[in-house]
Amino acid sequence: MRYETIRQKAYAANMQLPELGLVLFTFGNASEADRQEGVFAIKPSGVAYADLSPEKMVIVDFDGKTVDGSLNPSSDTQTHAVLYRHWEGIGGIVHTHSTYATAWAQSLRAIPIYGTTHADYNIVDIPCALPMDDAMIQGDYEIQTGYQVLDHFKENGFDYREVEMILLGNHAPFTWGKNAAKAVHNSAVLEQVAKMAYLTEQINPQVPLLKKALMDKHYQRKHGPNSYYGQ
Amino acid sequence: MRYETIRQKAYAANMQLPELGLVLFTFGNASEADRQEGVFAIKPSGVAYADLSPEKMVIVDFDGKTVDGSLNPSSDTQTHAVLYRHWEGIGGIVHTHSTYATAWAQSLRAIPIYGTTHADYNIVDIPCALPMDDAMIQGDYEIQTGYQVLDHFKENGFDYREVEMILLGNHAPFTWGKNAAKAVHNSAVLEQVAKMAYLTEQINPQVPLLKKALMDKHYQRKHGPNSYYGQ
Amino acid sequence: MRYETIRQKAYAANMQLPELGLVLFTFGNASEADRQEGVFAIKPSGVAYADLSPEKMVIVDFDGKTVDGSLNPSSDTQTHAVLYRHWEGIGGIVHTHSTYATAWAQSLRAIPIYGTTHADYNIVDIPCALPMDDAMIQGDYEIQTGYQVLDHFKENGFDYREVEMILLGNHAPFTWGKNAAKAVHNSAVLEQVAKMAYLTEQINPQVPLLKKALMDKHYQRKHGPNSYYGQ
Amino acid sequence: MRYETIRQKAYAANMQLPELGLVLFTFGNASEADRQEGVFAIKPSGVAYADLSPEKMVIVDFDGKTVDGSLNPSSDTQTHAVLYRHWEGIGGIVHTHSTYATAWAQSLRAIPIYGTTHADYNIVDIPCALPMDDAMIQGDYEIQTGYQVLDHFKENGFDYREVEMILLGNHAPFTWGKNAAKAVHNSAVLEQVAKMAYLTEQINPQVPLLKKALMDKHYQRKHGPNSYYGQ
Repeated sequence: MRYETIRQKAYAANMQLPELGLVLFTFGNASEADRQEGVFAIKPSGVAYADLSPEKMVIVDFDGKTVDGSLNPSSDTQTHAVLYRHWEGIGGIVHTHSTYATAWAQSLRAIPIYGTTHADYNIVDIPCALPMDDAMIQGDYEIQTGYQVLDHFKENGFDYREVEMILLGNHAPFTWGKNAAKAVHNSAVLEQVAKMAYLTEQINPQVPLLKKALMDKHYQRKHGPNSYYGQ
Repeated sequence: MRYETIRQKAYAANMQLPELGLVLFTFGNASEADRQEGVFAIKPSGVAYADLSPEKMVIVDFDGKTVDGSLNPSSDTQTHAVLYRHWEGIGGIVHTHSTYATAWAQSLRAIPIYGTTHADYNIVDIPCALPMDDAMIQGDYEIQTGYQVLDHFKENGFDYREVEMILLGNHAPFTWGKNAAKAVHNSAVLEQVAKMAYLTEQINPQVPLLKKALMDKHYQRKHGPNSYYGQ
Repeated sequence: MRYETIRQKAYAANMQLPELGLVLFTFGNASEADRQEGVFAIKPSGVAYADLSPEKMVIVDFDGKTVDGSLNPSSDTQTHAVLYRHWEGIGGIVHTHSTYATAWAQSLRAIPIYGTTHADYNIVDIPCALPMDDAMIQGDYEIQTGYQVLDHFKENGFDYREVEMILLGNHAPFTWGKNAAKAVHNSAVLEQVAKMAYLTEQINPQVPLLKKALMDKHYQRKHGPNSYYGQ
Repeated sequence: MRYETIRQKAYAANMQLPELGLVLFTFGNASEADRQEGVFAIKPSGVAYADLSPEKMVIVDFDGKTVDGSLNPSSDTQTHAVLYRHWEGIGGIVHTHSTYATAWAQSLRAIPIYGTTHADYNIVDIPCALPMDDAMIQGDYEIQTGYQVLDHFKENGFDYREVEMILLGNHAPFTWGKNAAKAVHNSAVLEQVAKMAYLTEQINPQVPLLKKALMDKHYQRKHGPNSYYGQ
């Protein structure tokens, strides 16, 4: 089987999504890239997770053209392709409609940083890109969705290696990372942070943001030259 | 066994309801129609899901008269019959008291369209029919419930092929589709959309509805001549 | 084994509580009465559900005196005894600290009747007895808890055969029925009704109560001479 | 294997955390002390629960120095060490980012005592220590976190034998007890109490605290010379 490694990894990542409670039915997809081959493996469109197998993953190049596989790739494939093309450091992407992250996306609000769970991952409010304008929606919607992400990061000075998640306003989250497994991990963390931020505001509507010293301390425990979390 | 196909399908659909977390005890029922025979198979009344089998499904005609089976059919059978009689394109119906959809029904509010998850299914607020008047309740309540649904669709210009779900005010949801499996699918989607809409309003009480261009784009990705979702 | 039938039934009912998600650790107990013998079987105090067996159930008479079994009965045993002594029609009692019902109890509010799920069981707001006065708390607390229930029903004209559940203010719910299995059923229904009423008020703070005609219709579908629910 | 008993106990306690739904991925840790040896066994840092074994637990002395084991101990090890050093009566400590307790911690609020479930464990609002000052965060953060707990208890006159849990403002909870199993138990109770207190305030924003007589009664049922709960 050609592209076996990324097929296996994309398959495993996709199967994690229902196991972690992040998708209902087929509302999500994960992909894993092979940078040397210039392709990625992604879930076929509308196929139930129970019916997936590594063979059914579709191999697509970074222009979004299918290069191997008989099934249609995810309808979000062009968005994945745009991100892989522009962000060379990422090897995996995940899209879900997970409950709490999607509720924030529908609310058109970034998720405020209220605690160290959030700061263990990044130290900005989790960004929410407002819906694109109507002409872009009516055009190549999925390609434009990719640019919606890229533009939001550029305009706000975010680095995709530091902030590995975004909410698409009115839609739902995308996450990424060095591989699909890390992107899945980020999706689960985002959902948990989204739920806790929601509860935090319900419990104390006047709650302040996490203070800077705690942001930096927790982020640096896990990231950068002096990190000391893990093995 | 007569009517074996619809017995099997109705049975499978009913068993999905507790598996998807949509019913507690016996608070729900699914039916599957055979248009050629002019009958449908429906859950027997008050029987625990664990005790069901295809044989126990009750076969009822579109006037609501039992034509095969020794058990009493669901107490909601007449409502199913009215819908099958008037809406020729449907082949399955599901009724549940799922938590979030029922909370919206009890709230007497349609579920506002806040995101693309909702627009993937339909592009109106999920309708909520206000409770019928007292004389109708005291009369043939379950038949009137069917007309409550039909009237609400007629008055609001909804097409049952485009909007496959409704909330009955103070009561709970009904969903339908080309078969019972699709009606079950719609019940699960409705519950998820209901939960996310609730959270969306809690997170941002001033949130606007989804804009028209996004509604249309997402609906048309999955429906109509130019749809490109799935295989 | 003496009292084998009620030991078995009390055991089965207790084991249902964690399975239905109604208890954490040992926060709950179920009992089953034998009216002819004048005794009931109840969970031993503080024993984990995983360690229970029919033999470990404690047999207690209606004055709350242990008549068989080497373990201490539930610390709530005297409350069960008072209810059995005064309400001759009940054969089972359940106490839990289930999440949503307990939150309403802590809120010192009866649960308003907002929908037909509630009316399928009873047609009053689910009663909440305010905390007893300090002297009673400091006295025979568990016996007084039984009288707190009885008095609240008497003062409000409720019939324990029609309303099989109560919230004890600041504490948690009790439910009962013809046997322990029905009392467990009622505890699960109460928890679900409590959750949906909470959500209903969040979605529509101005929501009206269920109207009388719907209350009566749904209650009479399941109860009384003209009921037509079930087999 | 040296330190086998505490390795086994720390391992078992850590494995309980995901089983009880208290941790996502590696967001938590449990330790068990051996007072005679002057050491404790703690989870290694950043290792998935599925990959743990008793052998992988790290043995650390009460000054926070690893004395046995090849893996890095939890990044929160110094906090555990400070607590063991100063509170001689405790034999186990647990740290989680459980959803509801963490939401209260992020809200910078103590959890008000609204019911008897809470009073069965302690009779104060569950304390929330405000974030430490910036110099302490930038210094030996994990050691300072231990002192943050100790100082909060000293300033408020709490006894660690009576109140076995705290929220660290903006961060998450710590719990402890005579051993790791009891600390895990306390973490699960705290999460449940946190959820019910949140719901209580949503249902009745003007709800009063539990009255003193009920606090005392329930606490004394389970604690002190006249307790009568359990075997």
